[in-house]
Amino acid sequence: MSLPDDRVTDWARVFRPRSVALVGVSGRPGHPMARPLEWLRDRGYAGRVLPVNPKYSELGSLPCHADLAAVPGPVDLVLCLTPAENVVATVEAAGAVGAAAVVVFASGFAEVGADGAALQADLVAAARAAGVRVIGPNCQGLFVARSRLFATFSAAAARPLETGSGIAYVGQSGAVGGSLLDLAAARGLDLSAWVSTGNQADVDLTEIGRVLVADPEIRVLAMYTESLPRGEDYARLAVEAEAAGTALVVLRSGRSETGRRAALSHTGAMLGDHPAFDLVSREHGVVLVDDVEEMLAAAALLRGQARPTGRRVAVLTSSGGAGILAADRCADADLSVPQLSSATQEALTALVPSFGAVQNPVDVTAQQFNDGGDAFARVCATVRADASIDAVVVVLTMLVGEVARTLAVDLARVVRDAPAGAPPLVVVWMAGEDATAEARRILTDAGVPVLSSVALAARVLGAAAPSPVASPVAVDGASVGGFADGWELLARLGVRTPEAVLIESAEAAAAAVAKVGGRAVLKAVAPGLEHKTELGGVRLDVPADRAVVEAAELLSSVPGAQAVLVQEQIPGGVELLVSVTAPADGWPGVLTVGRGGTEVELHRDLAHALAPVSADTARALLSSLRCWPLLAGHRGAPARDVEAAVAAVERISRAGRAPGVRELEVNPLVVGRSGAVAVDVLLDRGQSD
Amino acid sequence: MSLPDDRVTDWARVFRPRSVALVGVSGRPGHPMARPLEWLRDRGYAGRVLPVNPKYSELGSLPCHADLAAVPGPVDLVLCLTPAENVVATVEAAGAVGAAAVVVFASGFAEVGADGAALQADLVAAARAAGVRVIGPNCQGLFVARSRLFATFSAAAARPLETGSGIAYVGQSGAVGGSLLDLAAARGLDLSAWVSTGNQADVDLTEIGRVLVADPEIRVLAMYTESLPRGEDYARLAVEAEAAGTALVVLRSGRSETGRRAALSHTGAMLGDHPAFDLVSREHGVVLVDDVEEMLAAAALLRGQARPTGRRVAVLTSSGGAGILAADRCADADLSVPQLSSATQEALTALVPSFGAVQNPVDVTAQQFNDGGDAFARVCATVRADASIDAVVVVLTMLVGEVARTLAVDLARVVRDAPAGAPPLVVVWMAGEDATAEARRILTDAGVPVLSSVALAARVLGAAAPSPVASPVAVDGASVGGFADGWELLARLGVRTPEAVLIESAEAAAAAVAKVGGRAVLKAVAPGLEHKTELGGVRLDVPADRAVVEAAELLSSVPGAQAVLVQEQIPGGVELLVSVTAPADGWPGVLTVGRGGTEVELHRDLAHALAPVSADTARALLSSLRCWPLLAGHRGAPARDVEAAVAAVERISRAGRAPGVRELEVNPLVVGRSGAVAVDVLLDRGQSD
Repeated sequence: MSLPDDRVTDWARVFRPRSVALVGVSGRPGHPMARPLEWLRDRGYAGRVLPVNPKYSELGSLPCHADLAAVPGPVDLVLCLTPAENVVATVEAAGAVGAAAVVVFASGFAEVGADGAALQADLVAAARAAGVRVIGPNCQGLFVARSRLFATFSAAAARPLETGSGIAYVGQSGAVGGSLLDLAAARGLDLSAWVSTGNQADVDLTEIGRVLVADPEIRVLAMYTESLPRGEDYARLAVEAEAAGTALVVLRSGRSETGRRAALSHTGAMLGDHPAFDLVSREHGVVLVDDVEEMLAAAALLRGQARPTGRRVAVLTSSGGAGILAADRCADADLSVPQLSSATQEALTALVPSFGAVQNPVDVTAQQFNDGGDAFARVCATVRADASIDAVVVVLTMLVGEVARTLAVDLARVVRDAPAGAPPLVVVWMAGEDATAEARRILTDAGVPVLSSVALAARVLGAAAPSPVASPVAVDGASVGGFADGWELLARLGVRTPEAVLIESAEAAAAAVAKVGGRAVLKAVAPGLEHKTELGGVRLDVPADRAVVEAAELLSSVPGAQAVLVQEQIPGGVELLVSVTAPADGWPGVLTVGRGGTEVELHRDLAHALAPVSADTARALLSSLRCWPLLAGHRGAPARDVEAAVAAVERISRAGRAPGVRELEVNPLVVGRSGAVAVDVLLDRGQSD
Repeated sequence: MSLPDDRVTDWARVFRPRSVALVGVSGRPGHPMARPLEWLRDRGYAGRVLPVNPKYSELGSLPCHADLAAVPGPVDLVLCLTPAENVVATVEAAGAVGAAAVVVFASGFAEVGADGAALQADLVAAARAAGVRVIGPNCQGLFVARSRLFATFSAAAARPLETGSGIAYVGQSGAVGGSLLDLAAARGLDLSAWVSTGNQADVDLTEIGRVLVADPEIRVLAMYTESLPRGEDYARLAVEAEAAGTALVVLRSGRSETGRRAALSHTGAMLGDHPAFDLVSREHGVVLVDDVEEMLAAAALLRGQARPTGRRVAVLTSSGGAGILAADRCADADLSVPQLSSATQEALTALVPSFGAVQNPVDVTAQQFNDGGDAFARVCATVRADASIDAVVVVLTMLVGEVARTLAVDLARVVRDAPAGAPPLVVVWMAGEDATAEARRILTDAGVPVLSSVALAARVLGAAAPSPVASPVAVDGASVGGFADGWELLARLGVRTPEAVLIESAEAAAAAVAKVGGRAVLKAVAPGLEHKTELGGVRLDVPADRAVVEAAELLSSVPGAQAVLVQEQIPGGVELLVSVTAPADGWPGVLTVGRGGTEVELHRDLAHALAPVSADTARALLSSLRCWPLLAGHRGAPARDVEAAVAAVERISRAGRAPGVRELEVNPLVVGRSGAVAVDVLLDRGQSD
């Protein structure tokens, strides 16, 4: 339902408005819909606050106006606090007074069914006609710390929110956003900006996101989405965030089947697992998280420290047991806990008590803290300087009170004094928040996240570190000319296919088999016949003298069979699946490579990349498969022609850009000791097929 | 290093001692080693507190004795606060005065190397000779709430710890245990008992655990272990906990490879991934968790509510978005979020606002709470009464202050009023702890865990619910007579094997092939030849007229080949791996079933059960494999003789009880359209082989 993004919106009039009109504001003190007026009036907003409600001449000690037309002077932002049925009129009036945007809080639009959807369409039409942008409907508005703009009724905004942390939030859900705002503030991280986009009838979260990541004060944008943004919009946001050096942390709900069903009933939007979303995210360094705690932990890490540039973690701990647990959870998150360099171990030996451990995990023992001094800070600095380490997790147990405070001061200094790009440092403090409150605050202020569990720390670092799989970058594909079917498309792409002859009568079979090499595969050809194996529509290794009989059987026994494809019998090899989808909905095409044959679902051995791919990416994908040893030579079996497989994958990956192709699937691509041959192919031309 | 468990220890003298002597207690106020004296004196311990230190005649206003012999009256428990070198003398003195046990805090024993290990051996010998039990060394002692016994220096025990929660802890690590004690207390769950067993020279955590689970006040025993207890001890604890109705929650560290390396340097104990541990745990309903937060959450759940009896979760939420997230995370934890029954949905329709959702997740909308009343409590009660639901997760966002308090009171009532065995209810409260403190306390007191994230809730319910895989129970196996090799063992078990003839000269090959059916598999036989395929030591499908040549080649080309096994050629089929290990170290034998052939490591398609198994368990294991459709008939392929496979698995599973067997591995077991044949077998007789 988004409008084309061709209008120039002056977002400064939304995020730093000179005036805010509140249409339909409630006169009942304490009512949620009275909050924006109270907060704008009392909490430092420097612009004009303009209540609009025909029932009052004064509200909250401010003059109240009968309607927007009666408001004196320019209006930048309108908060629409009326019920759904009055929203269209308010949008029209806002346009008439030259407002930049209207924030619509009311529910009762697309989320409630057909009638609401119609009302939402009217709202969009009115906004376009009036030349105003709409945030919402069914949203909780926005908060901007620097301009003290409390254009929301979220109870979480009742917190002081006075110290901007550099973290901003944008998301459809005001409830999930409210949780983040509240939990963050409770832990000393006041958000710098916060926007709930609700039904996104006009403005969606990628558009708001692009405004926020361009703000130099914003170091991290935390984004929650219940529907998949348009691909090009999401990619543009990710690219701009990357260019601005703003970390983008994304929580996308509805990824599981049950979650999708719930999302369908909640937002009416059908999601789906979406490899292109994951791949675009990976390409641009987006951090994907799984819940609000992880989102907050990632934001707390990335607002003040560099991202890890690899997946090698050092664990420093006051408890051997806790260190082992941390190593276990790092392994779960595909992070390694490698031995430290011998130089580092040597340096640590002078710093760590003799009954500690200087490998990794480094166990400095509780005694190091009871002894006082800054030995632990020096341990941290030493380990962070080890080039074989990408991130440091400090796991603390029962260090409380003054010992805790001193340690926090020392650790904060280590982080502040380190060169830019030093491995990020995360603290897991396994002691009650009350007994460690001051230490936590000191660390938080220094940009060090203090987390409650080793599992959370491992998950967050796992999400923030580069993917364990090589990050393939799509390349441009050469254009492909016209083609009649999948076979011809493969031929144009330069992928080897078996010799083949199409015959329409069984009698032609013997000559055809002779022509393709003396032994052949016979396949029944019928419109819509997708899974030939299941229907008995394929005969393997047929010699010329059996060809007529077998072809006749196929034509008579396979329902709808109109012809027989007589195909060269390819010697056995490793069978791969290679498929590629065309770009769709603004998302790039996706290449899938995996173990092929008839047991694809049993093997579940697949890897994805944005298409088309380079040869390097094709090779990286193949080598990430479980079945890679079959190609490379496994248990004395012969190595296969990997380079031929790589070339075929690279070429097939270009098919997604060919005109009219929705999906091309080769299964199997038979990789022999010399060469790789596409033995079967399915071409999906979408609607036009 | 454990002593045989043949001595009767009066554990009441340890957990409720009439007197505690503190040998070597520090005179420095505030020093950790001065804490036990201060705490025993000041915090309600009703027995006699007896400082022992020749340097003082009075300590902490109590008379101080020169040595244990000088202490008047009986001594139940001795706390040994001396350095390592004085520990043996203290143990001897404790025995002389008839103490029941000595708690040894000092480090400097087995954890520091060979010298320490020798000292620890002396300690054990002294304890046996003196007739006292030893807890430690290198431990942090114990705390028992009911007897106000503060026999520990853990800083976490400085908390008031006045209200027993029914949760107890036992573990080697005092640091990890201290974290649990502190975090639990900070959240309103004072532990009822707490024991750190350290190096476990004498008493180990299973022995302490058995004392604790027998205490009716203890509802949950949380156990942390860095080394694998002996199998029979762990099983006995698990059985006794199950019989007592005490939930056993176990956190075992060192499960990953890195963790194992760390554990090796930390405790000197080599762990390892251990399927028998997991299977015994599953058999007795032990809840396995991954970190301290999960351990605490599981304990908070199980101390006051029933365990879920299945994996079907209802999600109730005030935020559609948060509900979808919860459904996603449940899916990650192998929990289902099924549609509620139509009767439940109908009943909910009357309770939930029209723009909410009554399926699952149930979205009651924030309005339900703003409206006041107890509608949400009725929603909870309605959903908990739905027989298709095993657990309920309530996900709350920004409900704070008085609304939160009222809700907590209502929810607590729902849980208290529900019949025994009602599905357990967990609350995820995504708002700052400070703004919801009273509500959290009300729920915690009512036995409802309040967690910080949907991911944690899903993981805890996933751990507490019955395994998604059928829980196989080992059966007794009939005894097996003598056997010369793996083939003969299989024959005695009634497993079909190929006809075979062993020949020692190539000339005998033709006749042998004719005897086994005209075509044969020839296998070189050489001592120590384990992986024949890799060495070119196997020839398939050899006809009689090629037999002499092929046999001669094998004998000349395979290093060490002394004979050739001429084996009936078995027609193709689905290849399985079936292996079984013998009981070892008190752990039962384990049966492994999986996709076999030469690509076992590529498929990684394996399932385990305690051995031997019944036919039902064999069938359940096979049907849990990814390759099951190959047996059952996949994509038009013929179904295989599943019952023959089941019978073969059942019979092979008995081999672990055969005399002298350490492991028997059949690979492949070829399952054809009729029958299942063990085509290759490896028998490991361990040392005696």
